[in-house]
Amino acid sequence: MKINENYLKLKESYLFSDISKKVGAFSEKNPDAKIIRLGIGDVTLPLVPAVTAALEAASREMGQKETFHGYGPEQGYGFLKDAIRDYYGEKGVELSSDEIFVSDGAKSDLGNILDIFSTDNTVLIPDPVYPVYVDTNTMAGRNIIYQNACEENGFLPMPDRSVKADIIYICSPNNPTGAVYDKAQLKEWVDYALDFGAIILFDSAYESFVREEALPTSIYQIESAKKCAIEFCSFSKTAGFTGTRCGYTVVPDELEFDGVKLGRLWLRRQTTKFNGVPYVIQRGAAAVFTPEGRSQIKANIDYYMENAKIVSETLDKVGIWHTGGKNSPYIWLKCPGGMKSWEYFDFLLAKAHVVGTPGEGFGVNGEGFFRLTAFNSRENVEEAVDRIIKASDMI
Amino acid sequence: MKINENYLKLKESYLFSDISKKVGAFSEKNPDAKIIRLGIGDVTLPLVPAVTAALEAASREMGQKETFHGYGPEQGYGFLKDAIRDYYGEKGVELSSDEIFVSDGAKSDLGNILDIFSTDNTVLIPDPVYPVYVDTNTMAGRNIIYQNACEENGFLPMPDRSVKADIIYICSPNNPTGAVYDKAQLKEWVDYALDFGAIILFDSAYESFVREEALPTSIYQIESAKKCAIEFCSFSKTAGFTGTRCGYTVVPDELEFDGVKLGRLWLRRQTTKFNGVPYVIQRGAAAVFTPEGRSQIKANIDYYMENAKIVSETLDKVGIWHTGGKNSPYIWLKCPGGMKSWEYFDFLLAKAHVVGTPGEGFGVNGEGFFRLTAFNSRENVEEAVDRIIKASDMI
Repeated sequence: MKINENYLKLKESYLFSDISKKVGAFSEKNPDAKIIRLGIGDVTLPLVPAVTAALEAASREMGQKETFHGYGPEQGYGFLKDAIRDYYGEKGVELSSDEIFVSDGAKSDLGNILDIFSTDNTVLIPDPVYPVYVDTNTMAGRNIIYQNACEENGFLPMPDRSVKADIIYICSPNNPTGAVYDKAQLKEWVDYALDFGAIILFDSAYESFVREEALPTSIYQIESAKKCAIEFCSFSKTAGFTGTRCGYTVVPDELEFDGVKLGRLWLRRQTTKFNGVPYVIQRGAAAVFTPEGRSQIKANIDYYMENAKIVSETLDKVGIWHTGGKNSPYIWLKCPGGMKSWEYFDFLLAKAHVVGTPGEGFGVNGEGFFRLTAFNSRENVEEAVDRIIKASDMI
Repeated sequence: MKINENYLKLKESYLFSDISKKVGAFSEKNPDAKIIRLGIGDVTLPLVPAVTAALEAASREMGQKETFHGYGPEQGYGFLKDAIRDYYGEKGVELSSDEIFVSDGAKSDLGNILDIFSTDNTVLIPDPVYPVYVDTNTMAGRNIIYQNACEENGFLPMPDRSVKADIIYICSPNNPTGAVYDKAQLKEWVDYALDFGAIILFDSAYESFVREEALPTSIYQIESAKKCAIEFCSFSKTAGFTGTRCGYTVVPDELEFDGVKLGRLWLRRQTTKFNGVPYVIQRGAAAVFTPEGRSQIKANIDYYMENAKIVSETLDKVGIWHTGGKNSPYIWLKCPGGMKSWEYFDFLLAKAHVVGTPGEGFGVNGEGFFRLTAFNSRENVEEAVDRIIKASDMI
């Protein structure tokens, strides 16, 4: 038996383990230092009451013969798909429930969707980037070309028509940079994709953090995007589902390549290699869309966004260039004093006892940049920014 | 963008939709007929109280800051992996928890595992078979060779050393035939795999239905199997998790091909394209292994196996050849009177108002055979067998 040798080409990522080692060593030497972590992109607030009540009720249903659920539809129950469809309706995007595929999260779908595309395609990925886009394509042996996201373009690269790509990744609001494309910019991407016969894989996992009404929260708010884009979304950051696992993927009925509807291929992939999201979890996810669920998750998102605002305003005050923080829980800053990413990491840990993520870990263009997140308590965020201000005086 | 053209080679399966259409048409013409379904392989008993209590408790934990769980380890929480490890220990199979990967079910893992193997491998699949083995390899463009399972070999084909295969599927107890390999037979397969440098993908989803102590419930009960086999198991049939979604895959540390540990590749696949099973569900799965969970699921399995026994003994009584039913919830019978699969389906529906699954739907060697399952109430099973006996007189 021969292994898939593409796996041997994967770069090992030591980013978070390196961070954890450095923090561990520092803590050991400085046992009294109260370290504040603004590094990892995981939520800190618990599930809202509407969701836990739905989870509990569904758990009880599963214990009664009359309300027990065995195998469900692989693409999700109607009650959840309809709620998602209505949510899109409010954004001005009309979908049918058959275009919505419920899954265990955007990460799974972003990886698994590649199964329906030929390995011969050329993939266009921005740098810096969420590492999953690169790794999943490397595993399949696809040709990857990178596109520079940098200070000059505000970490929002635009299409280059001298480059031919077949599969294009766009994440907006972006992880790690927090930058958000406006509608005119996304329109340029849609036009490029239509002209070049390319497909856009649009990762909208952070859409619920968008505050400015003029900014798009779905690529389907752009004309003709249904002809060239698949959209991936998740309850992870919207409703604190990082450990609860539910997301959804939209494959429009209009989306056709080589005369084949991609929705049909994706349905076949999912019915063959997936058995649906647990009934209990789907009930929890549906509760996110009830009036009380919505007001409760809005309070959580508001809480994180107030944190982000505090960080962003502090950086403005001390004159540190950054993207994000306004329509995203991520703040992507240019390391002050010309420091490199890891230098600033060490500096912030030593002088402020604050942990962030070196931008270099997200790609070569991340060098000299640094990611902070809004996922912590108000108290910790306020203390962290106070310390960052004081540390800035030492540069 | 080019699609994966292998998808166009997939055979569309209309098996269960054809069944449903036929049953629908019959019901319409015979509105008073009480139809009993022994067709689909889905459980009918609800989750046991130990599991629902754990699901409810974990749901409440997720609503409190102190006990909330965000991202967990992709390969599963220690508390569940340790419980699975101990379960294997009782079977005389020593595993470390690091060799166990918790997933959302055997179907997902059986499909996704192929990612770590080259598409150049030749795959050996028995016929008749669970269609997922064939479809997932067709999607990747692998060469598939089939192996005849038939009445002569009791639907337990043995290795043919004139055939060279790289990836071998074994499902025991088998779906759809219910046949179970003994240790000596599995040993021959292990020897073949070791001699030919092949890997065995061992699907043990029905292991908890094995009643005869001498029969293996894990391939690792066979010497040296850890050097050539990956095992897939599931809580679906064991504990009624078909709609709750949890399973596990064992990749032994000793398993190495081309000098690469397969466990390392699988970990990389899972950390890249999967984000773990919901915390709540893992707590429910762990409850399966508590003393009360075990006695409760044993009662359910006993219930199904008594159903299977009733069907099997009835077939013996009327002289219908069959496999399964003794160590499996499936009964695979030879259609009486030389009928073809669909003929017998129509006959049974018309004369006994009983629905089963035509064997032909599982492969060419299934023609002339028929699958019944034990997943129904005692009352319905007893009534169904009474009707089958009466119908037999009409042949």
